[in-house]
Amino acid sequence: MGEFFEESQPMGFEGKVWKFGDHIDTDVIIPARFLNVSDKDELAKSCFIDTRPDFAKEAGAGDVIIAGINFGCGSSREHAPLAIKAAGIGVVIAKSFARIFYRNAFNIGLPILESDEVPDFFSEEDRISVDVTTGEIKGLDSGKQFFAKPIPPFMQGIISAGGLVNYTKNKQ
Amino acid sequence: MGEFFEESQPMGFEGKVWKFGDHIDTDVIIPARFLNVSDKDELAKSCFIDTRPDFAKEAGAGDVIIAGINFGCGSSREHAPLAIKAAGIGVVIAKSFARIFYRNAFNIGLPILESDEVPDFFSEEDRISVDVTTGEIKGLDSGKQFFAKPIPPFMQGIISAGGLVNYTKNKQ
Repeated sequence: MGEFFEESQPMGFEGKVWKFGDHIDTDVIIPARFLNVSDKDELAKSCFIDTRPDFAKEAGAGDVIIAGINFGCGSSREHAPLAIKAAGIGVVIAKSFARIFYRNAFNIGLPILESDEVPDFFSEEDRISVDVTTGEIKGLDSGKQFFAKPIPPFMQGIISAGGLVNYTKNKQ
Repeated sequence: MGEFFEESQPMGFEGKVWKFGDHIDTDVIIPARFLNVSDKDELAKSCFIDTRPDFAKEAGAGDVIIAGINFGCGSSREHAPLAIKAAGIGVVIAKSFARIFYRNAFNIGLPILESDEVPDFFSEEDRISVDVTTGEIKGLDSGKQFFAKPIPPFMQGIISAGGLVNYTKNKQ
């Protein structure tokens, strides 16, 4: 999947909020019947296709997913963060992530942040800006500012390199 | 659950479309952690709470769920059609229903209709009218008319009585 996305990627995003609740399963993110898909555009189209058929059509570049606890639970599949990233989502903010999704997201270079307050504050379609490097999250309608839990610098390095494969390549 | 809803119920609805895709699981309709809930308002609030947190807040009386194949698959739970009905949804139209959901919906008096064309034609938030007795489905924006697959008369009797318990009571 090393060539799937750009060699490096932006760390700042501005867009609108897509709100989810708790325990979003990888099978909801991308149903198992699409796991044979490897084309980026096809993956993007399959993201949340059953529960939110309009998501792929309407999610704009830099939009942000905000969710509750245990985002990305269920069966492990790199396709889940890949599909989210392919759909144009800049960053996922959740109260917590399922452990394997967390690793998969870093591996493929999808920025994710944890916060307890942000998910309760923001609503569907709120406008938001996120700086993944500093962890600053701002509500553009309210002006309210939050900071996500800090990410270890080497994990930030993986994200900004566009994933683990590129990161390792750059290190050599 | 006999006292859960009115003794009889309307068979005509006018509202807006909530669009879903294929294989909507009962655990998506109402997550397992809410299966101890028996209060109608609480059930309504839990409907699609994780994947569509705004659903319960914004679904209006008489709104219509439109979905693809195999709606209501996964574990059998009467809570699933109950939660949909409690949320104010008038009728669910799908290409097909999971067998047990189909029976549960009739048992608790949630009108459901099958159609192959309707799910492909309607989009999120389209305005729609549905007559469950005749099976007539009309797009209020387009004026386009469809007919659902007919329901056997005794099944219609169960629905219009508000479910199996009331139906049996009325027969005595």
